[in-house]
Amino acid sequence: MKNLRIAAAQINTTVGDINGNVDLISKYIEKSQEYGVNIVAFPELSITGYPPEDLLLNDEYINANIQGLEKIKNKFNNILSLIGFVEKDDQNNKIYNSVAGLFNGKINFKYQKFFLPNYGVFDEKRYFSSGKINQEIHLLDYMGIKIGVNICEDLWEKGPPDIIKTQTQNGAELIININSSPFEIGKNEKRIELLTSKSKENKCFSLYVNQVGGQDELVFDGGSMLSSPDGDIIANSKQFEENLLILDINIEKVRKLRRKNNTPKKEYHSNNNVVSWKIELPNQESYNQKKIGIIPSKNILKTEKIETIYKALLLGTRDYVHKSGFEKVLIAISGGIDSALVTVIANDSIGNKNVIGVNMPSRYSSESSISDSEILCRRLGVNLLNLPIEPAHISFEKILQRTFENTNKNVAEENIQSRIRGTIIMALANKFNYLVMVTGNKSEMATGYATLYGDMAGAFAIIKDIPKSMVYELSKYRNLIGPGSPIPETILQKEPSAELKPNQLDSDSLPPYDQLDRIIEYYIEKKMGSNLILEKEKTELNGASKETIEKITKSIDKNEYKRRQSPPGIKITSTSFGKDRRMPIASKWNR
Amino acid sequence: MKNLRIAAAQINTTVGDINGNVDLISKYIEKSQEYGVNIVAFPELSITGYPPEDLLLNDEYINANIQGLEKIKNKFNNILSLIGFVEKDDQNNKIYNSVAGLFNGKINFKYQKFFLPNYGVFDEKRYFSSGKINQEIHLLDYMGIKIGVNICEDLWEKGPPDIIKTQTQNGAELIININSSPFEIGKNEKRIELLTSKSKENKCFSLYVNQVGGQDELVFDGGSMLSSPDGDIIANSKQFEENLLILDINIEKVRKLRRKNNTPKKEYHSNNNVVSWKIELPNQESYNQKKIGIIPSKNILKTEKIETIYKALLLGTRDYVHKSGFEKVLIAISGGIDSALVTVIANDSIGNKNVIGVNMPSRYSSESSISDSEILCRRLGVNLLNLPIEPAHISFEKILQRTFENTNKNVAEENIQSRIRGTIIMALANKFNYLVMVTGNKSEMATGYATLYGDMAGAFAIIKDIPKSMVYELSKYRNLIGPGSPIPETILQKEPSAELKPNQLDSDSLPPYDQLDRIIEYYIEKKMGSNLILEKEKTELNGASKETIEKITKSIDKNEYKRRQSPPGIKITSTSFGKDRRMPIASKWNR
Repeated sequence: MKNLRIAAAQINTTVGDINGNVDLISKYIEKSQEYGVNIVAFPELSITGYPPEDLLLNDEYINANIQGLEKIKNKFNNILSLIGFVEKDDQNNKIYNSVAGLFNGKINFKYQKFFLPNYGVFDEKRYFSSGKINQEIHLLDYMGIKIGVNICEDLWEKGPPDIIKTQTQNGAELIININSSPFEIGKNEKRIELLTSKSKENKCFSLYVNQVGGQDELVFDGGSMLSSPDGDIIANSKQFEENLLILDINIEKVRKLRRKNNTPKKEYHSNNNVVSWKIELPNQESYNQKKIGIIPSKNILKTEKIETIYKALLLGTRDYVHKSGFEKVLIAISGGIDSALVTVIANDSIGNKNVIGVNMPSRYSSESSISDSEILCRRLGVNLLNLPIEPAHISFEKILQRTFENTNKNVAEENIQSRIRGTIIMALANKFNYLVMVTGNKSEMATGYATLYGDMAGAFAIIKDIPKSMVYELSKYRNLIGPGSPIPETILQKEPSAELKPNQLDSDSLPPYDQLDRIIEYYIEKKMGSNLILEKEKTELNGASKETIEKITKSIDKNEYKRRQSPPGIKITSTSFGKDRRMPIASKWNR
Repeated sequence: MKNLRIAAAQINTTVGDINGNVDLISKYIEKSQEYGVNIVAFPELSITGYPPEDLLLNDEYINANIQGLEKIKNKFNNILSLIGFVEKDDQNNKIYNSVAGLFNGKINFKYQKFFLPNYGVFDEKRYFSSGKINQEIHLLDYMGIKIGVNICEDLWEKGPPDIIKTQTQNGAELIININSSPFEIGKNEKRIELLTSKSKENKCFSLYVNQVGGQDELVFDGGSMLSSPDGDIIANSKQFEENLLILDINIEKVRKLRRKNNTPKKEYHSNNNVVSWKIELPNQESYNQKKIGIIPSKNILKTEKIETIYKALLLGTRDYVHKSGFEKVLIAISGGIDSALVTVIANDSIGNKNVIGVNMPSRYSSESSISDSEILCRRLGVNLLNLPIEPAHISFEKILQRTFENTNKNVAEENIQSRIRGTIIMALANKFNYLVMVTGNKSEMATGYATLYGDMAGAFAIIKDIPKSMVYELSKYRNLIGPGSPIPETILQKEPSAELKPNQLDSDSLPPYDQLDRIIEYYIEKKMGSNLILEKEKTELNGASKETIEKITKSIDKNEYKRRQSPPGIKITSTSFGKDRRMPIASKWNR
């Protein structure tokens, strides 16, 4: 019976912090040793953090990453560590997104990522060269078991070459796929589907290892897991948390299955060279002596969609704040639903003592806006400043009086109020070293229903990728799960308003949010044109008219210049605003 | 004697404006016909504009581009038009960056770009698949002459395959390389060097066709040209202007040279299939009858570096304003050198009647700042508003008085003034539909010596990629060439100051600009770390200290969040801030 104890180290690295990442990796190797683990696998580019972006163009950065790997290499004995790093080929002036297998002071194995994602938020072809698995297949031969290692996209791409097929048909019994795969709605379900179907098809165990943590726009959700050769998930890690998943696998299961089915047939890429990296165990006896029989039971974790999204927002917020070196955040609380949700998320992620609210009422603010803000903050235990903007409002009117004489009121007057608030909130941030959280949602970002340098001013826009309808869902969900029900019912009930002129309502200038959010999804995520959207809307109960659709798509196009200057926010949908969607500003296209 | 009249149509297309681009291309084909041109070549992706970015993910956009090509196809007879467009392969769900050869109602030739740039500002692998010249070489056979067509990067990449070599060794006597190549300092010199050396090496005529015009951060500078098989530039187009370069070439020159040297030897890629697209001329007689013997004389144009930069700024500004659908621009004029230069550029590019200045003095503004602004605007004939910010300044102090009690003064107080100005200038822009031009230079953008939502507020930052020392150079240059000497000598002489507190000077918080600008160049453009920079600085007369270098590189790293929210500006150097440099915000790297 060939038993192997494997571990997925689902860690939270930091881009740029090579020393910190090396320490974190070392800590997890130690922990694995304590549990008698034979192989521990770390996420893609663990040493550098992911995505390092243009730091990869800096030679000193690459060298520091190699030194980091060296440091780990010399530190541990009798455990095989698979670690994602940047490999350098000085002769050809190339770099690779690679994984190294460290064992007893040596690099015993290397694999270079073959499929480099260069779509959506990914730019890997900007930096990396592709590996050569189409010419040479590198397999690990460890404790008598053949292991195929690959990286992220290598699992997803159909090929040719189909990487998993290539590796298993050449002998691999266990596949280890290391990832830095960011969260988006429905992504985890796709991963599970993919991993289990590949395992079943190729009759192998498959270990999926993903990182966890926030990095600028991205949240890595973890969800590391092992699939059996039958295509069952044997166990998975909790999403959104650092942890070490340890599992014992019995490789006989693979061998029996394969004998029975007489598979895999080697019909595929059979003319490739196979390079086998055999790791010689110095002393089998002593090597396994620490083994202490903890085999996790089947602990398959399921998280509901809305819970997942909420957790992604928490993690993304906490990591952005801390990884940027801040402690406290400042939020302009208006009494509306968006700022309420953002406040609750900040509270839940970094604690109420680190959240400061500021209410900046104007002559148009309703009584309830002020009192609702107070109730919210009281319930959370969040400090709330109250700084009415009237004196500044009057002064700008005075300054602009002559210039604006005989003109009609337009957005100019409205935006001044929002920008006064932006100025106050930034003054507080500059004075007390707070990080400002922006409260705009995706529906606003799409249509430009937000003021540049006003309510868009700040470092991080937590709900930038959350459409308004989902803002309500998340708020209700959070009130439901507790602790407490922080968001006042009046906030959930009242009609949305920017309160920048008397009796203003969002619905004066925007279509109903259910229509708006559907159209945004069609146009941004599904990349459909107005004509296709109209066909879709015809089938809906409260379908939008042609005019509404065109008004919205035009306003989305027109407001690219605003989004370009907006702070980053957390990617949640399949297409967020940011690196995910790269549009020209000066463009005459609209359809 | 085989004579061919060829033309390079150096046109200014607009991203998204497919109908407009089709009309523009048609106009230039007509013009070419009037001059009896046999082949007219247009820039890369002429139909869609370049770079179309994520519009390429929209199927309707791709279809509209194909329809645009069809429209042109059916319109002209007896002239071969080579036009850059997006080719679609529905079966494999791929698109190509291609060129089509239209002749008498048919697509008579196609070539797909092989080398796709995916570095710097380029993202072509995000969208396009690579052509198949490594499997199949497509040549044009037209009027008895063999022509090799290729696209932009195909000329630059050494390969393998070396595209020019592959085409000439398989018979091409004339190379036509179509481009959308953006301006940067020294780029045109590199193009000339490359084109002439390739022509000489391969004994062929080479026509280089580039587009002209501004698109967001990029300025395409044209500079289309023809190289002889001896490696001489026969003629070139003026940079930064639309025009049609028409030339007669005598292909016998190539044949004689080749016979004499017994070249090219077909040592290279000799096992490729060659596909020859022969264009049958319906009636040679009528076809050439319009030929009217204008052969441009040798008109090699040289532009000095500083002149080139100035012209790039003019074109980039004009096109950004007009392609975004604006007429008038608004500039905060402080009495300093940066806003003076920006005002002059705006004036020179769109005319003084379309430029509005606003001076917003504070309690810390010097007398001369106000009078210098007035002199500048009077000399240019630019309207200047005067809106002192004191009332707003007092009101914010009042609003924040209690909260700021017992704190030390810091940037908070300074930034308030800058943000008051941002609020006023945006109010004017919102009221009168002006486009706000931002006046920050590269030295400020690098070190964060600018206020987010304050002086950084606006749509377009003309001199964002111009270091402070070059701001002076450009200002002096413009005063020298006229018309007039608009920038007052006092502005050129005074010490730079933000005037946000009493007696403030830039040199209080920044090292001397010559040091600063060198370090920025080393760190940003040359991607050198602090250690390497220190070695370099040791060799300089006024070399910076270790402390200074580290202070600067750290402030560059730290201010990524500001730059991420800054407006786009014109790329001038080899690495501008924008798409050119993609850095993480939350990062612990600094060296």
